[in-house]
Amino acid sequence: MKIMNPRQHFCILFCLFWIQGLKNAGCQPSSKKPNIVLFIGDDFGYGDLSVYGHPTQEWGALDQMAVEGMKFTQFYTTSVFCTPSRTAILTGRMPLRTGAYGDKPVFLPNHSTGLPLQEITIAESLKELGYKTGMVGKWHLGMNKDIHTDQYYFPQNQGFDFVGTFLPFTLEDTCDEDQIYRFQPKRSKCFVYYNRTILQQPIQLDSLSTAMVQDMKAFFYENEDNPFFFYFPLPQTHIPFFNQPDFRNKSRRGPYGDQVNEMNWIVSEALDTLKELQLLDNTLSFFVSDHGAQRELCSHGGNNGLFSGGKANFYEGGIRVPAIAYWPGTIPANQINTAVMSTMDLLPTFMELAGGDPSNHGTFLDGISFAKILRDNDESAKHHDTLFFMCNEHLMAVRHQQYKIHYRTINPPSKRQYTNFCKEGIPALEYVMEKECDRTHKLNTPAIFNVEEDPGEDFPLMVHKYIDMLQKIDLEYQQLSESLPKDRKKLFDIEYIGINLSPCCNPPYCVCNYKRRSLRFLDYA
Amino acid sequence: MKIMNPRQHFCILFCLFWIQGLKNAGCQPSSKKPNIVLFIGDDFGYGDLSVYGHPTQEWGALDQMAVEGMKFTQFYTTSVFCTPSRTAILTGRMPLRTGAYGDKPVFLPNHSTGLPLQEITIAESLKELGYKTGMVGKWHLGMNKDIHTDQYYFPQNQGFDFVGTFLPFTLEDTCDEDQIYRFQPKRSKCFVYYNRTILQQPIQLDSLSTAMVQDMKAFFYENEDNPFFFYFPLPQTHIPFFNQPDFRNKSRRGPYGDQVNEMNWIVSEALDTLKELQLLDNTLSFFVSDHGAQRELCSHGGNNGLFSGGKANFYEGGIRVPAIAYWPGTIPANQINTAVMSTMDLLPTFMELAGGDPSNHGTFLDGISFAKILRDNDESAKHHDTLFFMCNEHLMAVRHQQYKIHYRTINPPSKRQYTNFCKEGIPALEYVMEKECDRTHKLNTPAIFNVEEDPGEDFPLMVHKYIDMLQKIDLEYQQLSESLPKDRKKLFDIEYIGINLSPCCNPPYCVCNYKRRSLRFLDYA
Repeated sequence: MKIMNPRQHFCILFCLFWIQGLKNAGCQPSSKKPNIVLFIGDDFGYGDLSVYGHPTQEWGALDQMAVEGMKFTQFYTTSVFCTPSRTAILTGRMPLRTGAYGDKPVFLPNHSTGLPLQEITIAESLKELGYKTGMVGKWHLGMNKDIHTDQYYFPQNQGFDFVGTFLPFTLEDTCDEDQIYRFQPKRSKCFVYYNRTILQQPIQLDSLSTAMVQDMKAFFYENEDNPFFFYFPLPQTHIPFFNQPDFRNKSRRGPYGDQVNEMNWIVSEALDTLKELQLLDNTLSFFVSDHGAQRELCSHGGNNGLFSGGKANFYEGGIRVPAIAYWPGTIPANQINTAVMSTMDLLPTFMELAGGDPSNHGTFLDGISFAKILRDNDESAKHHDTLFFMCNEHLMAVRHQQYKIHYRTINPPSKRQYTNFCKEGIPALEYVMEKECDRTHKLNTPAIFNVEEDPGEDFPLMVHKYIDMLQKIDLEYQQLSESLPKDRKKLFDIEYIGINLSPCCNPPYCVCNYKRRSLRFLDYA
Repeated sequence: MKIMNPRQHFCILFCLFWIQGLKNAGCQPSSKKPNIVLFIGDDFGYGDLSVYGHPTQEWGALDQMAVEGMKFTQFYTTSVFCTPSRTAILTGRMPLRTGAYGDKPVFLPNHSTGLPLQEITIAESLKELGYKTGMVGKWHLGMNKDIHTDQYYFPQNQGFDFVGTFLPFTLEDTCDEDQIYRFQPKRSKCFVYYNRTILQQPIQLDSLSTAMVQDMKAFFYENEDNPFFFYFPLPQTHIPFFNQPDFRNKSRRGPYGDQVNEMNWIVSEALDTLKELQLLDNTLSFFVSDHGAQRELCSHGGNNGLFSGGKANFYEGGIRVPAIAYWPGTIPANQINTAVMSTMDLLPTFMELAGGDPSNHGTFLDGISFAKILRDNDESAKHHDTLFFMCNEHLMAVRHQQYKIHYRTINPPSKRQYTNFCKEGIPALEYVMEKECDRTHKLNTPAIFNVEEDPGEDFPLMVHKYIDMLQKIDLEYQQLSESLPKDRKKLFDIEYIGINLSPCCNPPYCVCNYKRRSLRFLDYA
């Protein structure tokens, strides 16, 4: 063994202290770009996880991420429907800017529109910064433009290098194998792809999660040496219920709890693989839901905790979502962040963490980076003073400081109404959720709540005391309106419904069940 | 230094392993009786703490106890009013057995009745097992019998060796210094004692917590060498709001949040003192609320989380309570217990932990010990299959396995009603909470909910599918009824309202503000 001289000793000690010091200060050496894994819940409510207060939901990987990382309690989505919410997540921009609104609440398989290709997604931003990008899960941001095979709006054209097992559309009641909602799955709406190939039509639900997990792991293995972004919009907890056999009838909470447990299993598989690859300390894992749980689905819908309302209306239950950041060694354990955040913040946050500058992003961003909060635990980081919530082109509600102001309303069903259309907890098929933004009614005077004191929005404040605030908000809204592109199209309009756009693996039958390629070779776009 | 021979070495190593083994197995050496500190929340809801899901309530000592110990998610109280709930906590028996029910919901200062002295309280049980017992805080289990000075039902006659600063009655809207509820505090109902002496009439609210904390600490110091039981029914969060100056206007959640922060400060003072005395590892600290938060108090009432209803009705919001056990070294961190428990279980649990045998308790107990869960983390320990919830002599609701069955109902106010009597979140004085059990109405058919799947009690199940279960419950209820003493008195009856029973420090004025004795000497009963 070579003996070191005192200067060498000093040098090594200094280096150790310096590295330790950096670690203690919550810093990663800045040269290494962190990997980013983004999980999105589907119709997953604020109260659906044990760590957010559900009394009988089993503890799982998401809860563990929260207690070993940061749990957000005032995190908002932008929309109460899937597609617009997801466009905002991936672009950092309000649906009003990207056109993700219109007569229908979401893109349908026969729509000729999708998230415009000129929009810059998180995947594109991070690719520019040297990341490999991949996804599995639910897309729901557009499919075909002219014919059922052109795949014009597929994720491969939106910055994703790798696209594994995925649902270009969504899961919905029409895909129900258990025949609770439909006698048999509707093939024109129920299909799963691997990259550009339809694997199954309709979907084999019991193996869906496993297929996605296998693809995710393969992507992690293949990219262990370079920074990567992986987008995993989870297929749970949208109806219909589905589970792999080993997750069925296990949860104390019942079938919905089984779904959450399977979701947690997916997340645990991701974290275990990152750990195995020794990437955990250099990976930010983030979970957020697309919007609140749909209460009209009775016990087939999730739980919005102490909030009123849910999916499709604008009470906090519809727009406030669980959000969890996990980055061991950088984010200290047991952080609870109460700042007002938005899903639109993810793009600029990820850009900054990847060494980019969100102010040089090619398009206007509505999101604000909270990278400093994640990386440096800097509580002084700027957050949102005002967030606008729209339905089609109507201003529904505003979060301003501690206040929530409702301008128009879609009333959630009353307790009695729930009772009437929920038999044994199973939703009545005849019930149609109110989704038409144009049928919302304008309130004569805005309804104002202090949602930090009264999160349930039970006790309206007296409007005449808040005239100055309302005027300030009006002004901000006017500025917002003026900043919107004049030539924007409403992409969910009926006028974009086309023929021969719905995928079909073998016309005219549309029934397939193919094995996907060996996982040793990933298909890249 | 003396050299040890190999046998001595072995012996020492063996001893170390043995002790370590005991510690790892979660055992305390059985010879040492644990101290027990019991905190009771007042009208404190399931959703009032950050760790139970409140989004803006600051994190505090109770939350920390939960994450470093055990959080219960299906813990029930026995009654939706203060006095009966507290009689059950202290005796392990249903209010129907002890007589803690009647025309009024609680004992009033002019009642000649109190918790019968022949009832055996936790304090009496533990005293028998060698414990010193003490309390500060809210009593509300009876005061005088024949004259305003006889103190017949005071805690000193119910097993408490030391009684510090305490409220023999309660805090209520009549004690309001801020004149939100009353123009001036009503002296006949608002007084604080130290042991047997009235210190203040009306109460100086801003120093109340500090006085109680000082007494608690003095008791801990004085009893560091012997096992002790300390009972601290907290004066928060009943109306009126009050705070020490350093807790005012600090909480993001507003005035209610300030109160919770002061509560948390009290608890932190207790834990810090135990730590200083090196007693923390040998002390079980337990927190539970007396019943749910009163929603009719608007933003002056607490939050019942994802449950419906609250104080004075029998939805889960009224009867399911937050409960936390903290015992470092014995209860592992991050435990979430979902077993169905009752506040009546505390007496037998504490008895068993103190080395006693609950089956030898002098009277019939409705509670079941969960000592094995706390001490040995033994999940197989027995818990409640059926819990009955009564209002006066009416069977209101039953928790049976995962089901909740309502037989009679007090409807909680609707969202619209809340709106009408809450102006700026402040409750209208004219609103009178429905407290009359005899005015509840019997449902034609019971309403059944699966509260593990549907904790909000939104989706009633079809009764005809549960006939067998209902018959089983009927039988159990019949057995319960037959087990009740035939000669019991309803102690809250109007017939026990007397004259000259309300405390008055200097008749006829009833206005005092005395300094209490030096804390170096504790007054023992």
